[in-house]
Amino acid sequence: MTEVNGYQQSDNEKKLTILNLPALEAEAKKIIPTGGFGYIVGGAEDDWTLRQNTLAFQHAQIVPKALSNIESPDLSTQIFGIDLKTPVMMAPAAAQGLAHSQGEKATAKGVAAVGGLMSQSTYSSTSIADTAAAAPGAPQFFQLYMSKDWDFNYSLLDEAVKAGVKGIILTVDATVDGYREQDIINNFQFPIPMANLEKFSAGDGKGKGIGEIYASAAQKIGEDDVRRIAEYTKLPVIVKGIESPEDALRAIGAGASGIYVSNHGGRELNGGPAAFDVLPSIAKAVNHQVPIIFDSGVRRGSHVFKALAAGADLVAFARPVLYGLALGGAQGVQSVFEQIDHEFEIVMQLAGTKTIADVKQAPLTHFNYQD
Amino acid sequence: MTEVNGYQQSDNEKKLTILNLPALEAEAKKIIPTGGFGYIVGGAEDDWTLRQNTLAFQHAQIVPKALSNIESPDLSTQIFGIDLKTPVMMAPAAAQGLAHSQGEKATAKGVAAVGGLMSQSTYSSTSIADTAAAAPGAPQFFQLYMSKDWDFNYSLLDEAVKAGVKGIILTVDATVDGYREQDIINNFQFPIPMANLEKFSAGDGKGKGIGEIYASAAQKIGEDDVRRIAEYTKLPVIVKGIESPEDALRAIGAGASGIYVSNHGGRELNGGPAAFDVLPSIAKAVNHQVPIIFDSGVRRGSHVFKALAAGADLVAFARPVLYGLALGGAQGVQSVFEQIDHEFEIVMQLAGTKTIADVKQAPLTHFNYQD
Amino acid sequence: MTEVNGYQQSDNEKKLTILNLPALEAEAKKIIPTGGFGYIVGGAEDDWTLRQNTLAFQHAQIVPKALSNIESPDLSTQIFGIDLKTPVMMAPAAAQGLAHSQGEKATAKGVAAVGGLMSQSTYSSTSIADTAAAAPGAPQFFQLYMSKDWDFNYSLLDEAVKAGVKGIILTVDATVDGYREQDIINNFQFPIPMANLEKFSAGDGKGKGIGEIYASAAQKIGEDDVRRIAEYTKLPVIVKGIESPEDALRAIGAGASGIYVSNHGGRELNGGPAAFDVLPSIAKAVNHQVPIIFDSGVRRGSHVFKALAAGADLVAFARPVLYGLALGGAQGVQSVFEQIDHEFEIVMQLAGTKTIADVKQAPLTHFNYQD
Amino acid sequence: MTEVNGYQQSDNEKKLTILNLPALEAEAKKIIPTGGFGYIVGGAEDDWTLRQNTLAFQHAQIVPKALSNIESPDLSTQIFGIDLKTPVMMAPAAAQGLAHSQGEKATAKGVAAVGGLMSQSTYSSTSIADTAAAAPGAPQFFQLYMSKDWDFNYSLLDEAVKAGVKGIILTVDATVDGYREQDIINNFQFPIPMANLEKFSAGDGKGKGIGEIYASAAQKIGEDDVRRIAEYTKLPVIVKGIESPEDALRAIGAGASGIYVSNHGGRELNGGPAAFDVLPSIAKAVNHQVPIIFDSGVRRGSHVFKALAAGADLVAFARPVLYGLALGGAQGVQSVFEQIDHEFEIVMQLAGTKTIADVKQAPLTHFNYQD
Repeated sequence: MTEVNGYQQSDNEKKLTILNLPALEAEAKKIIPTGGFGYIVGGAEDDWTLRQNTLAFQHAQIVPKALSNIESPDLSTQIFGIDLKTPVMMAPAAAQGLAHSQGEKATAKGVAAVGGLMSQSTYSSTSIADTAAAAPGAPQFFQLYMSKDWDFNYSLLDEAVKAGVKGIILTVDATVDGYREQDIINNFQFPIPMANLEKFSAGDGKGKGIGEIYASAAQKIGEDDVRRIAEYTKLPVIVKGIESPEDALRAIGAGASGIYVSNHGGRELNGGPAAFDVLPSIAKAVNHQVPIIFDSGVRRGSHVFKALAAGADLVAFARPVLYGLALGGAQGVQSVFEQIDHEFEIVMQLAGTKTIADVKQAPLTHFNYQD
Repeated sequence: MTEVNGYQQSDNEKKLTILNLPALEAEAKKIIPTGGFGYIVGGAEDDWTLRQNTLAFQHAQIVPKALSNIESPDLSTQIFGIDLKTPVMMAPAAAQGLAHSQGEKATAKGVAAVGGLMSQSTYSSTSIADTAAAAPGAPQFFQLYMSKDWDFNYSLLDEAVKAGVKGIILTVDATVDGYREQDIINNFQFPIPMANLEKFSAGDGKGKGIGEIYASAAQKIGEDDVRRIAEYTKLPVIVKGIESPEDALRAIGAGASGIYVSNHGGRELNGGPAAFDVLPSIAKAVNHQVPIIFDSGVRRGSHVFKALAAGADLVAFARPVLYGLALGGAQGVQSVFEQIDHEFEIVMQLAGTKTIADVKQAPLTHFNYQD
Repeated sequence: MTEVNGYQQSDNEKKLTILNLPALEAEAKKIIPTGGFGYIVGGAEDDWTLRQNTLAFQHAQIVPKALSNIESPDLSTQIFGIDLKTPVMMAPAAAQGLAHSQGEKATAKGVAAVGGLMSQSTYSSTSIADTAAAAPGAPQFFQLYMSKDWDFNYSLLDEAVKAGVKGIILTVDATVDGYREQDIINNFQFPIPMANLEKFSAGDGKGKGIGEIYASAAQKIGEDDVRRIAEYTKLPVIVKGIESPEDALRAIGAGASGIYVSNHGGRELNGGPAAFDVLPSIAKAVNHQVPIIFDSGVRRGSHVFKALAAGADLVAFARPVLYGLALGGAQGVQSVFEQIDHEFEIVMQLAGTKTIADVKQAPLTHFNYQD
Repeated sequence: MTEVNGYQQSDNEKKLTILNLPALEAEAKKIIPTGGFGYIVGGAEDDWTLRQNTLAFQHAQIVPKALSNIESPDLSTQIFGIDLKTPVMMAPAAAQGLAHSQGEKATAKGVAAVGGLMSQSTYSSTSIADTAAAAPGAPQFFQLYMSKDWDFNYSLLDEAVKAGVKGIILTVDATVDGYREQDIINNFQFPIPMANLEKFSAGDGKGKGIGEIYASAAQKIGEDDVRRIAEYTKLPVIVKGIESPEDALRAIGAGASGIYVSNHGGRELNGGPAAFDVLPSIAKAVNHQVPIIFDSGVRRGSHVFKALAAGADLVAFARPVLYGLALGGAQGVQSVFEQIDHEFEIVMQLAGTKTIADVKQAPLTHFNYQD
């Protein structure tokens, strides 16, 4: 353990033996301090949307194709011309120093080890440059929480471009912090500085609650912001936090090169639908104009399959990765991705799908199951 | 504590630290005597409709509008030309002396402190004049449980008009008391007089059960009564307890200036639908001819949003307010309203809605969730 | 207690204080011997249909009529010209000596005390004549479990006619005993003779299991049997155990004067629908050609209302009555009927329905609730 | 008990007293060693599809035919000209030596005793010839897990033909082992050799996990394989693991003489629909061109009825049989079949169906029940 400002950070570094990703939560809870764990695990209000996110995968069922004459499924895919060995990517997640002393650097290494795509959060514990340098040559996206201060935004985007990121994820569903009861119960304040905020006039976030952090960010985010970032960076801008077909089309109209369907893992607006449930109508509206990334609730190989079959091009997740990070550092992250890839590969074979393209065209049924 | 006729009334007066409104119930149970608490918390028969009232908010989901470019949502609204700082109002609730020695006077003060709308019950522990005087200048409605004796009705209405109330809520869904098992188990009788009944031939209610109280009231309530009250008071009459489009239109035809969709918090007819589920069809039928007030089951900011988006103009609640009243008097009431307003404001921002008018036009989805 | 063949029969005789009918089961379990209680309470296979019977009342919801200007609801109704003070009747139930030493005689008295309709089972503990004589002048039906031996059938029908019964209920849904696990677990055999079987060649049932009893009865029951009984008795024949519109029409075609929608309280065929769910389509098909009696799952006043609104003319139940019988004899039976009538009367008033005819025309909604 | 390679095999041989088949699981768990029991009981991932398999029978309900004038239902039926005394057959199940020292030989005897159809698995503990010889003259099918090595496949098929099997079941839904967490938790490896694999180049399976066993088998299975097996054996080939109408038609086009609707008891692909839910659409597409066998989740007589009424010609199950095998050997297997036949016969009588043909034409309703 490494102690920083009274907070005990894990410095584990080992491969994990994983039965399944849901089981990691209880293990991680033992080693992540209460405040940090509550920040990671919690959702908004009474966690209703958070719970539905995972339960909603039961709303669609995989129809296996028999006699498909395939073997050795191939998980590799592409986005914006980037070759990936797996369609499962790391979702942007703040403050990974809460889980491990190496923070995002370890996550980046673990993700690179499986040939996946890393995304960095604006609110990372480690800096854009450091996280990028931790996995040289591996593809990364940078996620932007827009500041009211455009000088600051430009400065971050400059760093991201300089670090070689392949795309900008603009988060638009968190213009204020969700009503997160775990953080209130724990009176949680970030014990660890956010590296990217150090040059930010409002300070580095240390000793602040998430509410204060968000208050320093922009509440007003509009279509012009998408255009501005795209023009400034010349990078693909993916708008994250889309939950309706109308918004997906407006984002594309505003210059988005990608749509990121998500409800922020149930951490922002409670009482909205499960992300998986809104995916099909959005995919239909987008109609392959731009790629779609999906997150919120993904825990199983079968979830990855269902999300791709429902219209996603990449599938992201974060909480289980942070648990793996706490339990095993970079290798723990790698173990988490290997586990979900392993489960997903089995599902691909059993469903009779050889490639990710096959998965995307696989049919789903929609019987109504209750539990 | 103040003891009245052997009943221990809270006389707390303090701001409350509230995590969420559902959590208040257990706290309040500790300080409200069993009989009074049972009277407040209970529903009819096996509480099925009561439970569905809150669960039904899961039947509709909020579709956030991304890239909406808004900040600082504005909760202010109007009804009958009255300016309100919040669309959340106090539902009429009887016998608030059960929760606090200051009864409705404290509630009125707390509601006024947030710029909300108070409604007084016929069966109040404090008189119309006293409750009105507790919050001078603040808007109040008076709720009428019609007596068989029109002299008595006129007398009450006269007092209400004199006290300056802005509207009359005529309750039509409680022509006999619901089968409330909590009251039977506790053999509950009102320990505290009902101030407005003191001049009533049947007595002030003290030492009576709710069945006896209702028996003294009118069972027959018809369209003519709406007209009669409207003509007599020249005030807007809002008919409370409407659960179908047909009845809403009939009430309007009979002179109602407002419709109050409610199933009396599940306290009267058990086995009817959740109030939230019948709201959209009623709103469609009413078609903005008159404003719609909604109550039954509201506990969260997201519930307020959903009720407005489903057709309500104001959203009322009572039980959590009574718990706040018991725990903190007028300040406790204020804390309860501030909590739900705070949650609601977050939801407004995250949903991309700047004004109450925006909320009323926000779309809802209707995926079928089970828990 | 009265001991008969080692079986302890209750001989209670008192009015009961009842909170609600579901709560009676636990009370009754304390005084009815295990085997007898298991026989009464149990259903077939895993009790799935039994459970759905009561849960299904949640599939329809009462839409109250506001401003209906009514008071003092009138529960009286008629069937086959018989005046009844309540639409709630006693379903035929075997072997009531299991619950009380006075058996069906006490039940008949209790039912008569509320002005309701009694039905006697072929497998009664007391004889047709004795049960009829216990409540002189009160209306009764006789339920026939057809024997293979028509001399025996005619003999029973002769007795019933002689005793003045007003109708014959022919049970057709029990041509073999359901797979009742409670009886198997308890190795249950009837400790008490069945009076009507004493002249039956197969014996009086004492010391036999229900399987043996049914084995002595007719398995083949067809349309001709309906005609034969109607012609022989000149009484209305009500065919009991109808679960589809087709069968209702066939029964009418075969001479039935009434349809009895029931799945035998979940005691015969498990895996069929809840009786309440099939009622509307049957009522639509029958289209008032003949009256419809309904049972299976009724426990609340709101259930009575819903069954009538869904198409029934009379609503029957048995298990709660048997619990009341065990706990209080004839007066206990009376208390059970008074309780459900009381709840039902409240529902009628709150729903805005003055008469049973109004209830039958009351609308129901069908929102999908889960619990 | 017989100890083989440190594994304790039951050698019980007795008739069982069975309340119901679900209750057998707990009994069997007491005598089957943990690893073997986990292998038998477990499903894939979180067992969701496994659980839905049985719950899904609640999605359809039996509509009894009243006044049907039938008695003594006849359970006999035919498939491919084979006379059977029951439509309930033994599903192919691997490694029955885990449950009993006599393995498939005892199962075959027990199945023959009720006049049912046995199917042998490629991965049987006893050889094709021995299992066939255990029940001389009784009908059996042989289930093939295709090897990559066609010499081996031909050799197995030769043995099967020589042993007189009446059909070949080709399993196509297990081209890799499902993600079975029970086996991972128990680090399960087969303690007992698989007799049919002894001449297989990859060894007899002893000391291997199911993953290794499947790895030696063919992953690529296509339409040509169906044709090849049919032509080689001249026997009916039944393709097992069909879950969609499209695949059923393709299998028939490839020469299948029968369709076997199954999701492998939830042991392979998790996240697919319950087998019972896909049966009606497949039956409609197949339209009686070839017979349909159904398994996955069958535990009750009412389940057998529903599967036949939904389109199956035979209904198979395995887990309860293995529990009966462990508890009572051949006689235990016989007891299990007698129990489900007994329940099914009661359901047939109560549903008013005299023959299996009647059952196949019986209507089902589809009310939406939650539990």
